Amino acid sequence: MLFTQTFIPTLREVPGDAVIASHRLMFRAGMLRKLANGLFTYLPLGLRSFRKLERIVREEMDATGALEIKPSVVVPGELWKESGRWETMGEALLRVKNRLGADLVVSPTAEEAFTAMVRDELSSYRQLPLTLYQINTKYRDEIRPRYGVMRGREFTMKDAYSYHTDDAGLDEMYEKMGRAYRRIFKRCGLTVIPVRADSGAMGGSGSEEFMVESEIGDNTLVLCRDCGYAANVEKAACKPDYNPDGGVPAAAIAPVDTPAVRTIEELCNFLNTGASAFIKTLIYRAINVELDLSEAPGTCRPEKKAPRGGQDGPVTYGEAFFAVLIRGDLEVNEVKLAAVLKASEVSLAADADVERLTGAPVGFAGPVGLRTIPLVADESVTVMFDAVTGALAKDLHYTHAAYGRDFTPWLVTDLRTVKAGDRCTLCGGELYEKKGNELGHIFKLGYKYSRSMGVHYLDEEGKTRLPTMGCYGIGLDRTLASVIEEHHDEGGIVWPMTLTPYQVIIIPIKYGEAVKAAADQLAATLEGAGIEVLLDDRDERPGVKFNDADLLGIPYRVVVGEKNLAPDKPRVELKRRGKGEIRLMELGFGAGKAAEELSALIRGELAELNR
Amino acid sequence: MLFTQTFIPTLREVPGDAVIASHRLMFRAGMLRKLANGLFTYLPLGLRSFRKLERIVREEMDATGALEIKPSVVVPGELWKESGRWETMGEALLRVKNRLGADLVVSPTAEEAFTAMVRDELSSYRQLPLTLYQINTKYRDEIRPRYGVMRGREFTMKDAYSYHTDDAGLDEMYEKMGRAYRRIFKRCGLTVIPVRADSGAMGGSGSEEFMVESEIGDNTLVLCRDCGYAANVEKAACKPDYNPDGGVPAAAIAPVDTPAVRTIEELCNFLNTGASAFIKTLIYRAINVELDLSEAPGTCRPEKKAPRGGQDGPVTYGEAFFAVLIRGDLEVNEVKLAAVLKASEVSLAADADVERLTGAPVGFAGPVGLRTIPLVADESVTVMFDAVTGALAKDLHYTHAAYGRDFTPWLVTDLRTVKAGDRCTLCGGELYEKKGNELGHIFKLGYKYSRSMGVHYLDEEGKTRLPTMGCYGIGLDRTLASVIEEHHDEGGIVWPMTLTPYQVIIIPIKYGEAVKAAADQLAATLEGAGIEVLLDDRDERPGVKFNDADLLGIPYRVVVGEKNLAPDKPRVELKRRGKGEIRLMELGFGAGKAAEELSALIRGELAELNR
Repeated sequence: MLFTQTFIPTLREVPGDAVIASHRLMFRAGMLRKLANGLFTYLPLGLRSFRKLERIVREEMDATGALEIKPSVVVPGELWKESGRWETMGEALLRVKNRLGADLVVSPTAEEAFTAMVRDELSSYRQLPLTLYQINTKYRDEIRPRYGVMRGREFTMKDAYSYHTDDAGLDEMYEKMGRAYRRIFKRCGLTVIPVRADSGAMGGSGSEEFMVESEIGDNTLVLCRDCGYAANVEKAACKPDYNPDGGVPAAAIAPVDTPAVRTIEELCNFLNTGASAFIKTLIYRAINVELDLSEAPGTCRPEKKAPRGGQDGPVTYGEAFFAVLIRGDLEVNEVKLAAVLKASEVSLAADADVERLTGAPVGFAGPVGLRTIPLVADESVTVMFDAVTGALAKDLHYTHAAYGRDFTPWLVTDLRTVKAGDRCTLCGGELYEKKGNELGHIFKLGYKYSRSMGVHYLDEEGKTRLPTMGCYGIGLDRTLASVIEEHHDEGGIVWPMTLTPYQVIIIPIKYGEAVKAAADQLAATLEGAGIEVLLDDRDERPGVKFNDADLLGIPYRVVVGEKNLAPDKPRVELKRRGKGEIRLMELGFGAGKAAEELSALIRGELAELNR
Repeated sequence: MLFTQTFIPTLREVPGDAVIASHRLMFRAGMLRKLANGLFTYLPLGLRSFRKLERIVREEMDATGALEIKPSVVVPGELWKESGRWETMGEALLRVKNRLGADLVVSPTAEEAFTAMVRDELSSYRQLPLTLYQINTKYRDEIRPRYGVMRGREFTMKDAYSYHTDDAGLDEMYEKMGRAYRRIFKRCGLTVIPVRADSGAMGGSGSEEFMVESEIGDNTLVLCRDCGYAANVEKAACKPDYNPDGGVPAAAIAPVDTPAVRTIEELCNFLNTGASAFIKTLIYRAINVELDLSEAPGTCRPEKKAPRGGQDGPVTYGEAFFAVLIRGDLEVNEVKLAAVLKASEVSLAADADVERLTGAPVGFAGPVGLRTIPLVADESVTVMFDAVTGALAKDLHYTHAAYGRDFTPWLVTDLRTVKAGDRCTLCGGELYEKKGNELGHIFKLGYKYSRSMGVHYLDEEGKTRLPTMGCYGIGLDRTLASVIEEHHDEGGIVWPMTLTPYQVIIIPIKYGEAVKAAADQLAATLEGAGIEVLLDDRDERPGVKFNDADLLGIPYRVVVGEKNLAPDKPRVELKRRGKGEIRLMELGFGAGKAAEELSALIRGELAELNR
């Protein structure tokens, strides 16, 4: 391809809002342009890399046995109402009313569209397992899109959904997908941090996120220096920093006047002790709780809602309140809390609710004598036998409160937010934190959607059953951007061979006469051998061409200059992007020798990445 | 691919709303499912054919030198406001407000998105010509989607836009695209009717529609039996059915009382004459008129609007009225009328407007003495020298009205709707009508968008100029459906080799032992030779498999049965879909002979279509 015949508008200037390397470089290299905030156009160069990524993902998906389909991008709102996500998805869901007043959704994800189709087609266990995927346009109405395609509003995602008769089948596909994801990222030359949720607090639920380290990452990762344990802070667990068996109840509980003292810090000062001596009691409001609360204590009973997905759905509670207990120096992890309560959302209760439920102003909640709502305690509380805590009355606290003697939680579980310096749950090593961006996610969904959307099949004995589901997503745009984040230098992009828009860039020092003939010949011979060539035929100074070649990041740069074109032994300069060395390469008859050498280099690099 | 490893839910039942063959067969063959009205999911089999079509379109686009890009599907409403189409596009444009209150559009077409990007990047004539295309998702909020993907709401379209410094460059790309379109349809095995607008009334404006004949077509085509002239009725011209030079004015014009007579039919009866003796006068309201009306006659002056696209845009009139004259037995073609007036829309004026402008009740409009608005006459009126026409007063008509003596139109042009039986404008042959569906359209846009959206470049002399544009679209879904419309029989689809999801279907009579071994071997050898094979390993009766093979339309069917597998000379049955003959084919060592024979047949068919 001649440079002047394609459209590669390189820029010296960096767009003002481009703060990360991939955003800057995709714009400067003429790969991408902005249509509006969070909406972009891939230009020819960017699209070439994008299509290569798409192909890698497709190949690896096909290799798992997943079958590609293509649902529409705009889908009926009805499906989202069935699954319940019309309400729970919030404002990131782009809702449209069409001219006939029907609700539509511009898909942000496709559990509903796939499951609705499978529901109509599934009748027998013989049709299972079934794994379907798409590579398609998605839209999420990000409130603050930024960092180019790393966090855009519209993006392309590969999402797969699998349907199985049992856990063993789901486990098998889940493992296959995990291997496919590792291969995809390896082929892209990406270093990912696989973050398993099931090695931690969540038990064997099955979820693995594929993260790349990034300063501007949405996620905080907790990693172990010693054993390689990695977890999203939302789900990370740690070893207890206390003796789990330890201690006996202290002296009898005693009230203490604490006038005008409300925060833990004020209490610490007032009682001259550390935060770890306190039991923090937080009143939480949870929405759409699926945990069975029929046996839970409390005089304020939450109201039941009709079960979702017909008779076999679980009972839910639209709104329920809980008193969450945790050691004073720790923070509650709300993702863990929501998971334990099977709630779609949890948040601190409003002051009025706190006062109503505790009978005291905000700041004096405590577990002792609290009868209105269930107590949910972090494990740290189970060894607190001489604690300070609120006494459910203004300006009053208890000292010497003891777990199991003065109060007994309804639930005890892991609710703490792990942080750097905590100890690894697996090996006891020191944990540290990194920011990360999620590129992919594989997840055992279980029966959530088959239940809510009423998907059934008949098993071998003719009984009606629900299939169990897995879902598996990769964001293509942010994967491409992450490759650039990992592979660039101050001159520009340094493409891995698998994703480069062109494999060779030929730069004639001056595109005319013998130089032109040699450059054209080499390009033709290379293209004949299936190599992707960009020939910079622009009427520009060599320096401009060299800079642009570096910016574009094409792996092999061949410079054709008159001085090396000796009639008996014409040669060209060869340089690998990202490496300093420049060496001369013989062209050979019909540029055959150079083409052969370059082909071998390129195929070698491809083989290494695709291995 | 094993049948049981893919997902091909064939149906015996036809969906109730499927009235055309392609809709029925795409559902029955398990290619497609419905998500909602006008919204579909391509299943694996359908997607395979769809992707092949996509590839053909992409190859032919690349061959023209067009460059593929990928803008977002959701685009800012701002761009549509700039182009003016936010207002003129009507309700088919799916408009969304995002969470921040910004207007968004789910793209139905992409003139705006492409032109906005080009506007930002274009600076010099050296960047032109530039032709860009996408193959992307589109949405049009069809009020009545039907016929499956033939008229869906969401669909995939290839749309290209070209930018040029002059008409010669545009003409060249327009011709190239025309050739590419012919090749695309030929490669798909489709018979298209290219309908040029510029051979008819519209002069050399440059527009060609690629139609397929269809009972349920949106378009009426007018074709000549003798010379092959074909035109959309919206634009078709015909030879005058009168002597264009003929006649002299008749006796002096005379009023005649016509009590309670309003329609042409009533008049015919009343005056005992034919409809062709009348001059029909219709008052039209036109919206966004770009025709210069500053010199037009009329006491009711239309109001000017600010020019679009800054100072160099044409003046428009938001609303203007015209009296349109045509011979009584002819119909006004509103598309022609809108084109002549350069209006975005024309429609018959409301009764109140008619009464206000003619000073008479509806039914008595006529050209003689009408001073309020301009007269626009069809050419048929120019030979009417003894006509009957309304006299601008209740219950009064004129007889003996003569063109040029009693009234003089401001404009005379071709406005008639051509119909079957009219005479060909080129050769005088008899015209006939067909219903057609438009699959593709190439169109010289000119300066419309570069002007309204302010696209500029500097020419060789440093002067600021507007580029001229072309646009070129193909609907992929309806092209695929049209292929099925043209290639099916009562048993199912009969795929052309270029678009078939698989090239060979192997049917083992019973998938076990020697039959299984032979079938597996043949499949492996064929796949090794790059042939796409579906092996029907289902535990079904042969009759079911044969019927499904016919339904799916895979070109070559190979039946492997025990009786033909003699150890010394094993053979299989071969049948070409759509042909009756079944013959035996030797398998040969490692199925090599059969594979070679099949490969040759398949490559031969591909070569013929792709020639």
